[in-house]
Amino acid sequence: MRADAQRKMRALLESAMEVFQTSGVDAPVREIAERAGVGLGTVYRHFPKRSDLIKAVFQTQVDACADAASDLASKYAPGEALARWMQRYVDFISTKPGLAAALHSGDPAYVALPVYFSKRLEPALKTLLSAATDAGAVRSGIEANDLLRAVATLCRGPQDEEPVYARKMVELLVDGLRYGASTPNTST
Amino acid sequence: MRADAQRKMRALLESAMEVFQTSGVDAPVREIAERAGVGLGTVYRHFPKRSDLIKAVFQTQVDACADAASDLASKYAPGEALARWMQRYVDFISTKPGLAAALHSGDPAYVALPVYFSKRLEPALKTLLSAATDAGAVRSGIEANDLLRAVATLCRGPQDEEPVYARKMVELLVDGLRYGASTPNTST
Repeated sequence: MRADAQRKMRALLESAMEVFQTSGVDAPVREIAERAGVGLGTVYRHFPKRSDLIKAVFQTQVDACADAASDLASKYAPGEALARWMQRYVDFISTKPGLAAALHSGDPAYVALPVYFSKRLEPALKTLLSAATDAGAVRSGIEANDLLRAVATLCRGPQDEEPVYARKMVELLVDGLRYGASTPNTST
Repeated sequence: MRADAQRKMRALLESAMEVFQTSGVDAPVREIAERAGVGLGTVYRHFPKRSDLIKAVFQTQVDACADAASDLASKYAPGEALARWMQRYVDFISTKPGLAAALHSGDPAYVALPVYFSKRLEPALKTLLSAATDAGAVRSGIEANDLLRAVATLCRGPQDEEPVYARKMVELLVDGLRYGASTPNTST
């Protein structure tokens, strides 16, 4: 019963994300409910206001991006895990133009989200950076916060469906980190 | 006599640039004339409208930045010349917030300036990039245009007097270019 409720909530947040992406954050709630296979009442019970739903979707995306860090760290060498996470972060930033507009709307409902964003993503990147530095795969002396900011700004502006330009520039930034490594090693 | 006129024009454009930087592009023309040591009439004869003066200042800055490319190429190894020009371009971008605001105001007077900007700076960077690639100092396959765009966006947003963050990120980008070089050589 509780697992079922969790599954429903996940489906609802996933559907909301998809609908926000295709139809914008002002899309009808009915469309989201139908896609998730839940009643309209269920949506409003959990998310009385639209901003509640937008916040929950944003936090879910931030969580998924932060959690990807430990997942990648367990699968790849430190330098490669860092490089892959930076591209995962590009995905996160560049697939939510509608959400970004809502966040920067000045609506007080969203005022706590930038803090949530930093509180989850900065430690995730810091851990990857330290591991890569310790392994001699990248240079030290670059702050996680500066990198998060750089990627976010590189993802701004006109983008195609697939953020080709942003991916290339983020790859350059990561290679820049590798260039100054204590132990140059192209395979990490 | 003609040399004297040129000197006066240079002093006028330089003063205008300085006044725009400290007091904004709406600063009184009298202030600019006084600083340059020319009469108010001289300013209005050469630049009937304020937008004429703003355009001329912008073009002068673009020209100086473009001309710096060949100057640096004659003094430094290709990789170093490229790295130094990228920082020179940061100077150009980050010291003219007032000009940028005017340029993006939508005023038709400024409509040709972005073209002027690309027409002068893209070939300048292309030449430096090719030389550095040929020398084996940096990788190939990165477009001058993408780099110009990346630096411009990295310079946006809150900056201190000295653009510490932007300089660091641009340095990373350049090191990223070096990382993929055919002949790794940290001294170029």
